[in-house]
Amino acid sequence: MKPSEWLRATLLTLALATTPALAADDGTVTNFLLDNGMEVVVIPDHRAPIVTHMVWYKIGSADEPPGKSGIAHFFEHLMFKATTNHAAGEFDRAVSAIGGSNNAFTSYDYTAFHETVAPSALGEMMSFEADRMRNLILTDDVIKTERDVILEERRSRIDSNPQAVLEEEVDATLWQNQPYRIPVIGWMQEMEQLNRADAKAFYDKYYTPNNAVLIVAGDVTPEMVKALAEKTYGKVARGPDLPPRIRPVEPEQNTKRTVTLTDARVSVPAFTTQWVVPSYHTAKPGEAEALDLLAEILGGGNRSRLYQQLVVKQGIAATAGAYFQGTMLDATNFTVYGAPRGDARLADVEAAVDAEIARIASGGVTDSELEKAKDRYVRAMIFARDKQDDMANMYGATLATGGNVRDVQEWPDRIRKVTADEVKAVAARYLKLDHSTTGYLLPQTQAGN
Amino acid sequence: MKPSEWLRATLLTLALATTPALAADDGTVTNFLLDNGMEVVVIPDHRAPIVTHMVWYKIGSADEPPGKSGIAHFFEHLMFKATTNHAAGEFDRAVSAIGGSNNAFTSYDYTAFHETVAPSALGEMMSFEADRMRNLILTDDVIKTERDVILEERRSRIDSNPQAVLEEEVDATLWQNQPYRIPVIGWMQEMEQLNRADAKAFYDKYYTPNNAVLIVAGDVTPEMVKALAEKTYGKVARGPDLPPRIRPVEPEQNTKRTVTLTDARVSVPAFTTQWVVPSYHTAKPGEAEALDLLAEILGGGNRSRLYQQLVVKQGIAATAGAYFQGTMLDATNFTVYGAPRGDARLADVEAAVDAEIARIASGGVTDSELEKAKDRYVRAMIFARDKQDDMANMYGATLATGGNVRDVQEWPDRIRKVTADEVKAVAARYLKLDHSTTGYLLPQTQAGN
Repeated sequence: MKPSEWLRATLLTLALATTPALAADDGTVTNFLLDNGMEVVVIPDHRAPIVTHMVWYKIGSADEPPGKSGIAHFFEHLMFKATTNHAAGEFDRAVSAIGGSNNAFTSYDYTAFHETVAPSALGEMMSFEADRMRNLILTDDVIKTERDVILEERRSRIDSNPQAVLEEEVDATLWQNQPYRIPVIGWMQEMEQLNRADAKAFYDKYYTPNNAVLIVAGDVTPEMVKALAEKTYGKVARGPDLPPRIRPVEPEQNTKRTVTLTDARVSVPAFTTQWVVPSYHTAKPGEAEALDLLAEILGGGNRSRLYQQLVVKQGIAATAGAYFQGTMLDATNFTVYGAPRGDARLADVEAAVDAEIARIASGGVTDSELEKAKDRYVRAMIFARDKQDDMANMYGATLATGGNVRDVQEWPDRIRKVTADEVKAVAARYLKLDHSTTGYLLPQTQAGN
Repeated sequence: MKPSEWLRATLLTLALATTPALAADDGTVTNFLLDNGMEVVVIPDHRAPIVTHMVWYKIGSADEPPGKSGIAHFFEHLMFKATTNHAAGEFDRAVSAIGGSNNAFTSYDYTAFHETVAPSALGEMMSFEADRMRNLILTDDVIKTERDVILEERRSRIDSNPQAVLEEEVDATLWQNQPYRIPVIGWMQEMEQLNRADAKAFYDKYYTPNNAVLIVAGDVTPEMVKALAEKTYGKVARGPDLPPRIRPVEPEQNTKRTVTLTDARVSVPAFTTQWVVPSYHTAKPGEAEALDLLAEILGGGNRSRLYQQLVVKQGIAATAGAYFQGTMLDATNFTVYGAPRGDARLADVEAAVDAEIARIASGGVTDSELEKAKDRYVRAMIFARDKQDDMANMYGATLATGGNVRDVQEWPDRIRKVTADEVKAVAARYLKLDHSTTGYLLPQTQAGN
């Protein structure tokens, strides 16, 4: 029914890396706990009569039991089904009826549900959302019908798309132990076996107020949010305490790995090279911020070294860049990518990307380009203040991956403190070509590329 | 204390593929259950006054909980510690005192303990073995001391050996989902965290008579074994029933992957290419037998195609071969390997190996070479009848990976029924180069090989 956005969730964490840590307007961000353990964050934004209401559950695909891949995303779908109080589709129709919008997404570390509506409808949204937190009706029929939907989603989004198939196998190769190895949507043969007992156990364990974060951004006051939240979410009984989210982590990596997919449907070859690096949650102080700026300087946009060197000066690449997914609970990945233009060969593009990495690892970055990169972050921050849902997403993703409100608020200051030496140091420490994983997407005719 | 043989366990399953399925002498193999659910197999062999006594637990590294890698092998070590009835080392000394030998090993699917002694000592062995099945004293001191031993074992056997490091990362790459991905000895960072609570839970769950198989081969009668077993193992209370051993399985693989380790300690480059293929336990009827014969014809010894073509005729390889690890609970791996000789390049050896695979996949094997391969199996069978412990290992490994006594006994007949077309079919179906994983071990100077 409601198409989920688990793919978007990946993009989302990228966007977060370039968005700010300030409350919209000059409003003070407020956070508190309900008596049942539910966290609440209120981000005032009075420019328009709109409110973004999100519930983030601290449960993602990386928390799934062995052999049950896909159940977190499956459960996101099931949350749109009938409850003991509302028929399936009633919540969606209520949002549409008042001109609002709603959706949900699942990622490795969280599952989130959100609505954007007029502030007068906030109480109603909370009432619906609190209802489905505990009152879903999980029958075999519901399970079977929705399982067919996610299987079809996998077929159409992954199995019929060579790039998506390659990305899955690159992830399974990059991660030797950590569960980010497993696709969010799940492995087909495991999705096919997901059943009502699995879903019920998952629901009872994770869909509880003490495992959820409520984010309300918009034309509201903390007092109003608190009063409404207590009347709705506050009535939901606290669930069993969950153990700390300690998952298998990566061993030391000692090899260079490649993953190659050759497919007739591919027209332009492309590559990505990835490394395991610390996330904001696992990094030593300053390292994740330095990785963010490294990604920006190396390949964050048109002013980056990769773009300037490969696309503009040498003219060999149609695209080239880098990114860092910092907002993750466990160690994360740093990625560079490129694709050739015209008669250029993929191998030339890859060698040129590698050369730019080596140049930063050995020569560092200049103070001038570091300042400009920081400035670009600040500009992105100003843009983000205009986007209520970006602010809500930033707080939600941070709180769902082991961070807190202050981490979000102090982030711009921490970015400003990064030195050129620190950027050089993380490049030299983490971006070693003989400890990396490269994926190649090749057209059939270039199989020998 | 007692060095474990988890590495040997891998070699063992290879040896099994070429050993027979007959009882030694003309003795009939007997099997029965004790009242507490313990399986017993008796293999009479009256040529010498010797008996091989083995207990196989149906618990291996692939059954470990997430994040607890290494605990199966760790527990093998702990089984040599003090019990409520015997001091640490007492069992070992008792075996030595009567001129016997003993050891233990851990693999992906099982953990086994064995002694070879005079038949008059069989009851004493059973008494010791039944005692440590339930009466180990697991203190924090014992855990800490033995954990240091396995950590040191990992450092010396794996981390200081480039080939072992490469093999680990090839396994972690070949297996995208199945637990054979994880090294039997464990990942260092997880081994360091193994504690008394983990060990106790593991012991209580898996070290029970109803999760064990007793194999006695030698100068004994079934009646004598049964009487002794009932007096010793038979007194151990049945443990909780275990759920079926259903583990995560592999998704479809769609890419060609490579894993490269370059190290100054390597003098001769080498490669292995692996595929995921069915095991005896997961295969359709006849497929695993065909894979065994394919391995034999392609690369099983001096008469194999790889040896004859690469080592003898072309003279480019110092070594080249193939093997199939059929005796596994889940899908397993088929492996080819090679290393260059003299001035030959690794890439030439790899291309020549690939060509031989393609030749079988498209042209099949001849009836004559198939018959000769079957004959070599029969000869290996005759040799194995002379080795009491090989017979015991064969039954133990089969029963610990989902098979039964009849599977062992009928195996030679099933091998004899394989046709040339069936060998060609498994080569074509499973040995696809664009769905394989290749590991390269390179000297520092040949980094660009």
